[in-house]
Amino acid sequence: MAVGPQLQHPGAEGMGDAFHPECVWRDVIDLSSRWTGPILHVLRERPLRFFELQTALEGISDKMLSQTLRTLVRDGLVTRTVEPTTPPRVTYELTTLGHSLADSLAPFIAWVRRHATDVLAARRRHDEPQSG
Amino acid sequence: MAVGPQLQHPGAEGMGDAFHPECVWRDVIDLSSRWTGPILHVLRERPLRFFELQTALEGISDKMLSQTLRTLVRDGLVTRTVEPTTPPRVTYELTTLGHSLADSLAPFIAWVRRHATDVLAARRRHDEPQSG
Repeated sequence: MAVGPQLQHPGAEGMGDAFHPECVWRDVIDLSSRWTGPILHVLRERPLRFFELQTALEGISDKMLSQTLRTLVRDGLVTRTVEPTTPPRVTYELTTLGHSLADSLAPFIAWVRRHATDVLAARRRHDEPQSG
Repeated sequence: MAVGPQLQHPGAEGMGDAFHPECVWRDVIDLSSRWTGPILHVLRERPLRFFELQTALEGISDKMLSQTLRTLVRDGLVTRTVEPTTPPRVTYELTTLGHSLADSLAPFIAWVRRHATDVLAARRRHDEPQSG
């Protein structure tokens, strides 16, 4: 799989073998999981325990949170620390690599905050019956 | 749906109603479609015709490209221009809004280019049988 630091900024043509969107967007960082981005984002502030992540990410199921965290740990983006208390205290924290990824996503999150209403308005205009 | 410019930067707690990851990551900009990001990215350079997009996004099917472009047009991110030639010449171009979104994604794409190998290496380490 030819994804790595050797990649050049592609023009519209010539992306060819050097830029596999499937790898970039799905295999490497699975943003197709809707929770990857939000988890990275809330962990930017400070390490969090499992139940704190649940609170921050309203609506996430235990199963989905566990699965996504497992993937992030496997990918070297998050560490999982277990303190042998009763019950065990489990904390999740961004690695240096995870922090740099979360930082790179910040402009996108800011964009969504700023322009979500623009997108929703465009969608409404598009779906309106044509007049005139 | 309470997604819009009024949103504040959330701490880990207190995201509550103000930040619905589901809206942000799925309903507003569907990055769960693996092709949304790559299409926006290749259109940053210049407007492209349908077949040029196919060439740039190696591996995309006609159907998936059409579907994703339709969504992007509906969301006000891309314009579709048809010139009445034979056959009709159809060109896709980022709107101002689409350009600002593509710009916001650029740091993430740069991160992936730079760190994809780190993620893949972490994954290999994680999956290795433990020794010692």
